Amino acid sequence: MYREKIKVLDATIRDGGLMNNHNFDHRFVREVYKALSETGVDYMEFGYRNSAKYFSPEEYGLWKFCKDDDIWRVIDGIESQTKISVMVDVGRADLDDVKPSAESPVDFIRTAAYVKDIDKAIFMANHFVEKGYLTSINIMAISRDQGFELEEALHQIEEECQVDIVYIVDSFGTLYQETTEFLVKQFKRILKTKEVGFHGHNNQQLAFCNTIEAIIHDANYLDGTVYGIGRAAGNCPLELLIGFLKNPKFDIRPVYDLISKELIPLGKKIEWGYVIPYAISGMMNEHPRAAMALRKSDKKDNYREFYESLINTELD
Amino acid sequence: MYREKIKVLDATIRDGGLMNNHNFDHRFVREVYKALSETGVDYMEFGYRNSAKYFSPEEYGLWKFCKDDDIWRVIDGIESQTKISVMVDVGRADLDDVKPSAESPVDFIRTAAYVKDIDKAIFMANHFVEKGYLTSINIMAISRDQGFELEEALHQIEEECQVDIVYIVDSFGTLYQETTEFLVKQFKRILKTKEVGFHGHNNQQLAFCNTIEAIIHDANYLDGTVYGIGRAAGNCPLELLIGFLKNPKFDIRPVYDLISKELIPLGKKIEWGYVIPYAISGMMNEHPRAAMALRKSDKKDNYREFYESLINTELD
Repeated sequence: MYREKIKVLDATIRDGGLMNNHNFDHRFVREVYKALSETGVDYMEFGYRNSAKYFSPEEYGLWKFCKDDDIWRVIDGIESQTKISVMVDVGRADLDDVKPSAESPVDFIRTAAYVKDIDKAIFMANHFVEKGYLTSINIMAISRDQGFELEEALHQIEEECQVDIVYIVDSFGTLYQETTEFLVKQFKRILKTKEVGFHGHNNQQLAFCNTIEAIIHDANYLDGTVYGIGRAAGNCPLELLIGFLKNPKFDIRPVYDLISKELIPLGKKIEWGYVIPYAISGMMNEHPRAAMALRKSDKKDNYREFYESLINTELD
Repeated sequence: MYREKIKVLDATIRDGGLMNNHNFDHRFVREVYKALSETGVDYMEFGYRNSAKYFSPEEYGLWKFCKDDDIWRVIDGIESQTKISVMVDVGRADLDDVKPSAESPVDFIRTAAYVKDIDKAIFMANHFVEKGYLTSINIMAISRDQGFELEEALHQIEEECQVDIVYIVDSFGTLYQETTEFLVKQFKRILKTKEVGFHGHNNQQLAFCNTIEAIIHDANYLDGTVYGIGRAAGNCPLELLIGFLKNPKFDIRPVYDLISKELIPLGKKIEWGYVIPYAISGMMNEHPRAAMALRKSDKKDNYREFYESLINTELD
């Protein structure tokens, strides 16, 4: 028996782009869009709608900016029910870069923010609601920002924001299923007029597990990426999520083809997935940036030293 | 707060041996035993105590047979609190190959059986109890054998068998956390005088998740393998399990060293872990043998055809 309200969002290009500075070429993005459309995935996130004021287009690929014209070009001529989303980061976007929804290929704008920036996120999200988009606030690094400040931020969103969905984002891959259960219940309790979403990271091989746990406790917006591609350890593999869900609208086969033809070759060029330094940073509730730097160094498999560098930091 | 009754068993050599016909050399097994001893793992499983009547020593390595002399040779001179286990398969072992416990390096004998063979398993397990071993029955392929027959088998074990522990074995990597919860509660309800154990497979990246779920519902005997090595998709990574458990007796660092020095090079020679055909067989509640054959063929990345070969089998 399936829950019709469940919506699956694929973040392959957006979260995967964190591993190659958003430099996926036109052909690759088009292949992903075609496969997701055939599979029946509800949303595909193309990348960030961040501003060229803050990021150089020479350093970053197209999907750091997700201009409407670049999206139109990718989707041209492909029959699809899959809607399109982009993410904006608080403090890195320019609201003038966002046209009214009716003039844009984008349907869904997700505003990413830490708890401390929740006022800015509410301001931006309300702006996108007014422009006619489906809108969410994605609360990043949730494993760091729990307790009173999170509780207050959720009350503020419920009272001051017209946003449709609020996502729990396990940026560091630190949550276990019990923590996920606790958070989803807390979000549902406070956010009476919003849907709850979940975005996991796979540092401890728990992204799919935590996504299932979120489903059990009534989160209806769920992120995955094809073959789990994403920053560092990556995300909940979309193919596992589709395999778990019972909605007969999904056909998993185009995603398998996409993995065979595109993700296996890509995995030989860029690294994501389960490697020990990412597992350590997830377990220690740390941003993966130190682990990612380690993987690019000649000490990439020196796990003990990396672990000790984290545990030997002075208590303060 | 940790639960002192929790015991961790490492099955690296036993389950990993299913990928190389149990051909780990003396040096490798000794390195594993040293690292697990330093880490403080409770049990290390060396392999199968199966009979040379049924398996040719020319075809299989030492750890298909786990003779006492070969174990003595590996552990010689290493200071350790880690106890030693071997597995026997119903119908493939000879009881005369098992000396009384006091004369053997082995402490723990685990009898593997399908539900249909439970009478034979009870007979064998009682025999090992009489010889002085800690003893378990490991119920294989639990995702296939649920319902009335499993219920009856558990009652039989509770009433007719002196075994100490009964394991839930998710041979096909098919369980989700809700199924695991259901099974652990069922085992605990019927097996009032036994401990419950859990052995997961990682086809859907849920072996660690299901192990945590088993812990939550009071299973106290938990299997892992270093870097998740094991048949096909492998098992619950021992390093994640140790990282999750709070018992201060564990030092995770020797396991990290073992992965750096031994498992990373080994992973270049034999394949285990998350690959799509194993995910498909887990999702479909199938033995991984067809997927393992596929991975050795020139169609190893033809996922669609493999998936269709399973779903297009006639319903009967």
